[in-house]
Amino acid sequence: MSFYDKLHVAWDTTESMLCVGLDPDPSRLPAHLGIGAEALQRFCIDIVDAVADQVCAIKPQIAYFSAIGAERVLEDLCEHVRARHPHLVLILDAKRGDIGDTAALYAREAFVRYGADAVTVNPYLGTDSLEPFLRTPGKGTIVLCRTSNAGSGEFQTMQDGETLYRRVARTAHEKWRQMGEVGLVVGATYPTELAEVRSIVGDMPLLIPGVGAQGGDVEAVVRAGRTPNGTGMIINSSRAVLYASDGRDFAEAARSVAIASRNAIAAANS
Amino acid sequence: MSFYDKLHVAWDTTESMLCVGLDPDPSRLPAHLGIGAEALQRFCIDIVDAVADQVCAIKPQIAYFSAIGAERVLEDLCEHVRARHPHLVLILDAKRGDIGDTAALYAREAFVRYGADAVTVNPYLGTDSLEPFLRTPGKGTIVLCRTSNAGSGEFQTMQDGETLYRRVARTAHEKWRQMGEVGLVVGATYPTELAEVRSIVGDMPLLIPGVGAQGGDVEAVVRAGRTPNGTGMIINSSRAVLYASDGRDFAEAARSVAIASRNAIAAANS
Repeated sequence: MSFYDKLHVAWDTTESMLCVGLDPDPSRLPAHLGIGAEALQRFCIDIVDAVADQVCAIKPQIAYFSAIGAERVLEDLCEHVRARHPHLVLILDAKRGDIGDTAALYAREAFVRYGADAVTVNPYLGTDSLEPFLRTPGKGTIVLCRTSNAGSGEFQTMQDGETLYRRVARTAHEKWRQMGEVGLVVGATYPTELAEVRSIVGDMPLLIPGVGAQGGDVEAVVRAGRTPNGTGMIINSSRAVLYASDGRDFAEAARSVAIASRNAIAAANS
Repeated sequence: MSFYDKLHVAWDTTESMLCVGLDPDPSRLPAHLGIGAEALQRFCIDIVDAVADQVCAIKPQIAYFSAIGAERVLEDLCEHVRARHPHLVLILDAKRGDIGDTAALYAREAFVRYGADAVTVNPYLGTDSLEPFLRTPGKGTIVLCRTSNAGSGEFQTMQDGETLYRRVARTAHEKWRQMGEVGLVVGATYPTELAEVRSIVGDMPLLIPGVGAQGGDVEAVVRAGRTPNGTGMIINSSRAVLYASDGRDFAEAARSVAIASRNAIAAANS
């Protein structure tokens, strides 16, 4: 099944546009889990199992594993998602960007080693740096467009007739879409620009970080980012879900926050 | 010792501005080494030992290790460079770019896990994404500016009064330099733009890929990129050195190419 098809099936069957980001800070894990790779693995798997029927996608952030040499935990986690929750879209958040053979190896890392359905990438180096990702059959390439952070305007809003983020969106729509299954990252913190990107890219999937802990307004985001049929978004929440409780009830608490977030998205979309 | 100090000592003591990039394609290793992680490690260590007195820096490309789950080989390789060739500047080519806590973890990956002196990063997300790298004492942050690939003009030459790569260079000089030890990646394939970047950034170190296999002209590069005292550049060659021979003499052949490249740089700089 293609990335686009899998995503549409996930939206339909879960009736959810929520994605949970797995950014497991070792210093914030519940104390009873202990420390080290085993604690990290238990935490992530329990969170995934608790929220699986409330979300369309799971998005592990690779830095949280690679910084501490825990790639094996990430491999096992991805395997768990694929085996136990095959309906979920697995997005590797890696924001890779390099050229030629190196880009091809990053595509292999995401799609073969971790078996992700899609990976986030950086457009700064241009189309040839994205090509190995876009050309991988059945896989999704989600390109940074307008990010949610405070410093994102420094270069992304440069103007050359149009802004840089708008040019990235237009290039995605006019060029990258012919090459593969492309999506864009557009932060929840800039709903006006989210609406502008949506108007450029048709029904292209948008990965939207920045609700929850980063303060993006769910109602404004849904109104700005949805497609006419009320889908098109993968709305990510990480910290608000992961750290809903630091006690033995962490998974149950994470599930409650996921349900509330999913319902807030559905209410804004009705 | 700071990154800048270590680099200046390396330029002085080796009298070389050559850097060898370790991009070890498993399918191109000499047959007698066999296959797998052990062959990869032997190949990289033999190349490093063969060229160590001819270069100022060694630059492993992380994707060649992470794509095949060989992070342990990269750890051992970095440890070998630090222990046996402590004069060499160790640059991790990772082109990372993310925000907040995630950026801090990528800095930890490069500087703590792999013990690199410097790491390459992507500016698309803005200053706050670079801050955890820049703020790490004694370490270097080498930001993509004008890359060597064919598609690099697609966004990097956008014009808003100035071009995007020029704005990145100016921001590096005016802002990032106050925050830490910054350098820039400027490809050898655009010598006119290299000269323009040099005129903006004073004596800031420039990492210059694209000579050798990518076809950049050493003489034009040296004339465009050097500082008044005839240093300021880390000129990278990867494939031309690594694959100089696929026989038992691969390390010796790599050394010969490194000597020739070093001499060509020195001749152009005289």
